[in-house]
Amino acid sequence: MSSERRALVIGTGLIGGSIGLALKAQGWRVTGRDVDESRAARAVELGALDDVGDDPSASITFVATPVSSVAREARAALRGGGVVTDVGGVKGAIVAAVADARFVGGHPMAGSEQEGVDGADAGLFEGATWVLTPTDDTDAEAYSRVRSVVSSLGAEVVALRPEDHDALVALVSHVPHLTAAALMQLAASGAEEHAVLLRLAAGGFRDMTRVAAGHPGIWPDICAENRGAIVAGIDRLQGALSEMRSLVDGGDRDALLQWLEEARRARVNLPVRAPRPEELAEIRVPVPDRPGVLAEVTTLVGEIGVNMFDFETVHSSAGDRGVLVFLVEAGAADLVRGALLARGYKPSAHPLA
Amino acid sequence: MSSERRALVIGTGLIGGSIGLALKAQGWRVTGRDVDESRAARAVELGALDDVGDDPSASITFVATPVSSVAREARAALRGGGVVTDVGGVKGAIVAAVADARFVGGHPMAGSEQEGVDGADAGLFEGATWVLTPTDDTDAEAYSRVRSVVSSLGAEVVALRPEDHDALVALVSHVPHLTAAALMQLAASGAEEHAVLLRLAAGGFRDMTRVAAGHPGIWPDICAENRGAIVAGIDRLQGALSEMRSLVDGGDRDALLQWLEEARRARVNLPVRAPRPEELAEIRVPVPDRPGVLAEVTTLVGEIGVNMFDFETVHSSAGDRGVLVFLVEAGAADLVRGALLARGYKPSAHPLA
Repeated sequence: MSSERRALVIGTGLIGGSIGLALKAQGWRVTGRDVDESRAARAVELGALDDVGDDPSASITFVATPVSSVAREARAALRGGGVVTDVGGVKGAIVAAVADARFVGGHPMAGSEQEGVDGADAGLFEGATWVLTPTDDTDAEAYSRVRSVVSSLGAEVVALRPEDHDALVALVSHVPHLTAAALMQLAASGAEEHAVLLRLAAGGFRDMTRVAAGHPGIWPDICAENRGAIVAGIDRLQGALSEMRSLVDGGDRDALLQWLEEARRARVNLPVRAPRPEELAEIRVPVPDRPGVLAEVTTLVGEIGVNMFDFETVHSSAGDRGVLVFLVEAGAADLVRGALLARGYKPSAHPLA
Repeated sequence: MSSERRALVIGTGLIGGSIGLALKAQGWRVTGRDVDESRAARAVELGALDDVGDDPSASITFVATPVSSVAREARAALRGGGVVTDVGGVKGAIVAAVADARFVGGHPMAGSEQEGVDGADAGLFEGATWVLTPTDDTDAEAYSRVRSVVSSLGAEVVALRPEDHDALVALVSHVPHLTAAALMQLAASGAEEHAVLLRLAAGGFRDMTRVAAGHPGIWPDICAENRGAIVAGIDRLQGALSEMRSLVDGGDRDALLQWLEEARRARVNLPVRAPRPEELAEIRVPVPDRPGVLAEVTTLVGEIGVNMFDFETVHSSAGDRGVLVFLVEAGAADLVRGALLARGYKPSAHPLA
């Protein structure tokens, strides 16, 4: 018998703690535990848990432990009457091992499991993508309940087959992570020959290798559980690098340019998590009422790589002029203003908060 | 005949415009031009230039054009009496093509040539590393003047042989950039199979591929001019990826963890900031007035991984000898002294505080 607004969180690190905070903010009673008892106690202190322990009558259990212990914890939690989900970065092996109609695999694409409960944030999942991996055996009501709770945390739910999740995440997370480490190793070995090398590392290199600064503890599990997709992903990356190497070596400027242009277009078109209101700025651009202005402004903003959130046209009472009003990330407001000034517009920018 | 505080900037994009703004803020008279006349006019509007045109009496010329036209512009600027430097991302070919004692190759590791003069910022080089590439033929006074102007923009100067610059930058900039494009292509091709893939791209992937969003226009030149080092860098990266693939495929958890831990340590140790004056020591090196001394001393200090924070050449009254004076971190003073002693110099070191 499960009780509607009682949740259990197993593993109270960054993700588990953030789930606890977000649920409690909505009035849930949240119980939780962690193999590290001091971490569970800290979660209580931070307001992420009401109590330390188990709660067999929880209507939903989040297993937020490292990947290798998810299946065991999930099976134990299923002895209660509620639904069970997890947050592990690999899904196929876990979903197959649990194999229960009331278990729905999950993976929030936000934060990192490694930063500890002190980094927990009730808003961590706002606008983040949260993958759920129903199978043919998943109970529809269990899926619906997990989906509704996850959505209530502000996440955008994407449903994928477990094996599709694993193949896709290998490409956008696991292989890039390992590649960041490989680039860092390469630079470090170069630095043994020329100690000055690391001082040449500018912003681009720092951005690319940032993920390599995380504690590597979770990666052996992930690599073991998603071995096939990761190896296949590395092979595809090696193929792309070989292609690029031959373009550079052969001096094929046009093909190289086209290749980089394709990558640029794909990068610029990456869907953007909707920012929170306090991260936005409003841009107002007075414009003459003539054809082409709307297209010029909107495509210019896109060309400089800035995403517009929301957009409206306000007409003046005179009717021959109007104002384009749109939202961009606050950090990009000056970039947008600069671009518009350069084209002769007189934009203004105001933080939305 | 050159005039002390007159500078010429050829190419007024982001970097050239930022140099102009920073010099004008210090009271320089800055003339400049660009193949795109509207861009030069815009630089005047933004306060980055006093005048559009040439200035044969400039004491220093910055060639901030794309790599392929640097050598031609530098040779033209050398017809005036001043010193000439550039900001190109590849140095060996340019320095060899210009081959003049008054030309000092340069490469500020900041910003991107692509964002245009509207992104120009007088503070762009504050704290950034700026590589200068003296050779055996470089005139000591020319080097000293370029170094002093570049330092006055807030940059930390690192001296490297042109060929060393190219090999190192291939590892920390060119190969990572191409790899970001390869990762983005990989994800884009995965997205053709599963449109949802790009919605799974979380912060780490976005960080890693951010550089791929830049306009690719400068890259065919860079890849052509630095072909050898880039191809060698790709080969090394492929080697590292193959090693990692075999660790994943073989399920070697301990080796994988160690490998990632090494990468983490290297990433965490990336250098970040310039030291405070009380952390510095002054090194004075009496030198004979012969070719190659300047390049030997400055690149030697760089090769042993020590950063020079200021540099000047003091000539003796006799004229046949001089003293190189520079600052290093106090903790590295003995290392520098040792290296210089080993090459037959007689350096002295004094704490600055």
